[in-house]
Amino acid sequence: MIPTLTFASAPTAQEREEGLVLAPRFDRDGLITAVAVDATTRDVLMVAHMNQEALSKTLETRQAWYWSRSRKALWLKGETSGQIQTVKDIRVDCDQDCILLTVEVAGDGGCCHTGRQNCFYRRIDHIAADGSVKLSPVHPNSH
Amino acid sequence: MIPTLTFASAPTAQEREEGLVLAPRFDRDGLITAVAVDATTRDVLMVAHMNQEALSKTLETRQAWYWSRSRKALWLKGETSGQIQTVKDIRVDCDQDCILLTVEVAGDGGCCHTGRQNCFYRRIDHIAADGSVKLSPVHPNSH
Repeated sequence: MIPTLTFASAPTAQEREEGLVLAPRFDRDGLITAVAVDATTRDVLMVAHMNQEALSKTLETRQAWYWSRSRKALWLKGETSGQIQTVKDIRVDCDQDCILLTVEVAGDGGCCHTGRQNCFYRRIDHIAADGSVKLSPVHPNSH
Repeated sequence: MIPTLTFASAPTAQEREEGLVLAPRFDRDGLITAVAVDATTRDVLMVAHMNQEALSKTLETRQAWYWSRSRKALWLKGETSGQIQTVKDIRVDCDQDCILLTVEVAGDGGCCHTGRQNCFYRRIDHIAADGSVKLSPVHPNSH
């Protein structure tokens, strides 16, 4: 049986940075940033947020759960689209306010709600004469 | 001469997601999330934040500037450490609240203030019997 998760607190920078116990620092909305990288292509697929419950469920089930800030709801990624993210590796950063997931994507292998393979489908192209910053599409098969 | 940057507003999801003009969505603290990936190894190096000025300076100078939330100060990454991040590519995500930088790191090639190569130097190892989540160090040369 999986024990109920408990997240440690790590009051000092030393504990957060050097400790070997997960002590996630949720922000004032109770959220932590989560970056998902594709295990095969190593592309950054998406950046989203997790609350305590989403992080617990992700750790327990090895499928990526997020907190949707727009819908204010817990969200099993891929529940409706089939693009379930099976978590192969989870890392935490130095100050423990960001989680890095390496995932295998089921279904059609996509990620973005717009239908693209990943969310970063536009790059900065140039600064126009009027000062606006123009984007251009990233080719779907480039990394 | 580089024109003064102006960031567009994109009030509708359609404009934000399909438009080819940068319209960053800063949060209520005036910040946007920035993920830096190493151009050579493709490792995620760090996740930090930019305010409007940091993003403008990054676009204009092609060196990564961030906003330090702890120090409440604009921060040219590498100014003291020599680990300047030269930006090779900048992408924005679907809802334009996250920036993805691909960078070449100068100096000793490192990134993390703890002295490690990157900030994600610990991975989730296992859930202990008491429910705490144990971490283990990531080997410096693994990806």
